[in-house]
Amino acid sequence: MKIWLNGVIKNQDDACIATTDRGFLLGDGLFETMRAHKGRVAWLSRHLDRLKGHADAIGFDHSLLPTPEQVRQAIETLCAEIDGDDAVIRLTVTRGSAPRGILPPDTCHPTILITAAPFARPITDNGLILATSKVIRRNPWSVAGRVKSLNYLDNIAARREVASYGADEALILSVDGTVAETTIANLFAVRNGAVYTPPVECGILPGLARQCVLDWCHQNDIVMHVASIDPADLTSMDAMFVCNALQGLRLVQSIDGYSFKPGLKTTKILRRLDGVLDRELSLGIDI
Amino acid sequence: MKIWLNGVIKNQDDACIATTDRGFLLGDGLFETMRAHKGRVAWLSRHLDRLKGHADAIGFDHSLLPTPEQVRQAIETLCAEIDGDDAVIRLTVTRGSAPRGILPPDTCHPTILITAAPFARPITDNGLILATSKVIRRNPWSVAGRVKSLNYLDNIAARREVASYGADEALILSVDGTVAETTIANLFAVRNGAVYTPPVECGILPGLARQCVLDWCHQNDIVMHVASIDPADLTSMDAMFVCNALQGLRLVQSIDGYSFKPGLKTTKILRRLDGVLDRELSLGIDI
Repeated sequence: MKIWLNGVIKNQDDACIATTDRGFLLGDGLFETMRAHKGRVAWLSRHLDRLKGHADAIGFDHSLLPTPEQVRQAIETLCAEIDGDDAVIRLTVTRGSAPRGILPPDTCHPTILITAAPFARPITDNGLILATSKVIRRNPWSVAGRVKSLNYLDNIAARREVASYGADEALILSVDGTVAETTIANLFAVRNGAVYTPPVECGILPGLARQCVLDWCHQNDIVMHVASIDPADLTSMDAMFVCNALQGLRLVQSIDGYSFKPGLKTTKILRRLDGVLDRELSLGIDI
Repeated sequence: MKIWLNGVIKNQDDACIATTDRGFLLGDGLFETMRAHKGRVAWLSRHLDRLKGHADAIGFDHSLLPTPEQVRQAIETLCAEIDGDDAVIRLTVTRGSAPRGILPPDTCHPTILITAAPFARPITDNGLILATSKVIRRNPWSVAGRVKSLNYLDNIAARREVASYGADEALILSVDGTVAETTIANLFAVRNGAVYTPPVECGILPGLARQCVLDWCHQNDIVMHVASIDPADLTSMDAMFVCNALQGLRLVQSIDGYSFKPGLKTTKILRRLDGVLDRELSLGIDI
């Protein structure tokens, strides 16, 4: 397996992260997960714009990030090395090595890692089985939660917890008890032809696929409610789905044992949305 | 600089963390910061017991941790290589390398790193200047906050924020607006001979030094209130201090511009507590 580390293509087994790297010691870093088709990355400009914004949010000089052209070339090279046309790309950026201490040094030499692995869209025949995490809630007062940071231990804990209930994925509430997101995707519900999703203020990571859904609803005169959702209201919904920039749209089969039964009108909206996301992601369209 | 990595003493520059390490990619790990004197670690058994408890909390098989004897020997060897009698030790444990995905594999080969660096107790002549973070709050519904995890981005953000206000350290509130802790220490206040500290339930990491303070107050008939503290009440306190297992007790000079003026009775309590913590930490007493 080849990887791109700080500008150099290497064998994964020969690549090395320093034991003083703040990404390793303190989770002081960010990442983007992207989908590529034949070496071209879907939404690359959007991903890199978001990374820049998140770098600003954690006080990381974004002029130290690789240029879009460097990223594009790295991904093309890595994709040529793997099997199949479809790849999942991860771009990881840490603040690099530094002496002990929480406060980062003024100047840093970031660690930048790009990897590619074969991607197959998950089979969503019957949809995802969701269970609500009883342990983890999202915190609107967290920078680590608002940006796509390396701080994933709460997501790992939630996923482990719901796996023990036999679920595929965790529904995570916000500290105020309203619905927030899953460990890797934004949440949506559909009722009577209208689409519902929680607002950014509940402590979610506002994903690129989420924005794509919002934009599409706006352009297609679908009523969109970006507002707090009480978990007790979920069973009044016709359908639920999750989305992210890797897997596109995935239907939710059930939540805490309650199964959704979408009618024709809802199914039509879901199919159209799935088509929009899948087309852009599966063709590696960079818009 | 020598380090201990997975059982082997190496030069830091020759040591290598895999790019697939979940500690690096997802913050999937824990650490302990300890103080050593002449190669002996203060509170080593307590640190290793806590690490075991935190490993259980994140579903990490603690039989994979090094034995106390291995840790003791590693630290002794590392301390012999550095200047001075006093050292800060960091023991980092990650879930190790794994294929992509949030859910960790059932079996893992952890990465275990021990480092030592010269330690000098910070000069606390005038005490710490604290400022309340307006951005970050603690989340009681977070595993990453309750255990000593690698997820430190919120602490880094809070420290950067208050540095911009000219403060040494951040006072972090809980999501409910009550006082929680600082980025690296637990918080205490003293008023009329009684000691106050926030409860674990507000989302703090309950430190070993905090427990030592609680025990000492109990043994010495000092009234101890472990209860929520309204930040508005801080200016009614005679004094504030922070403590952790590395630096012991540090006085707070001021909070958001308000300066404390401890009287004789308060100063006596502070001196005694400082003496108790300092003696155990500076002599490397393992109890």
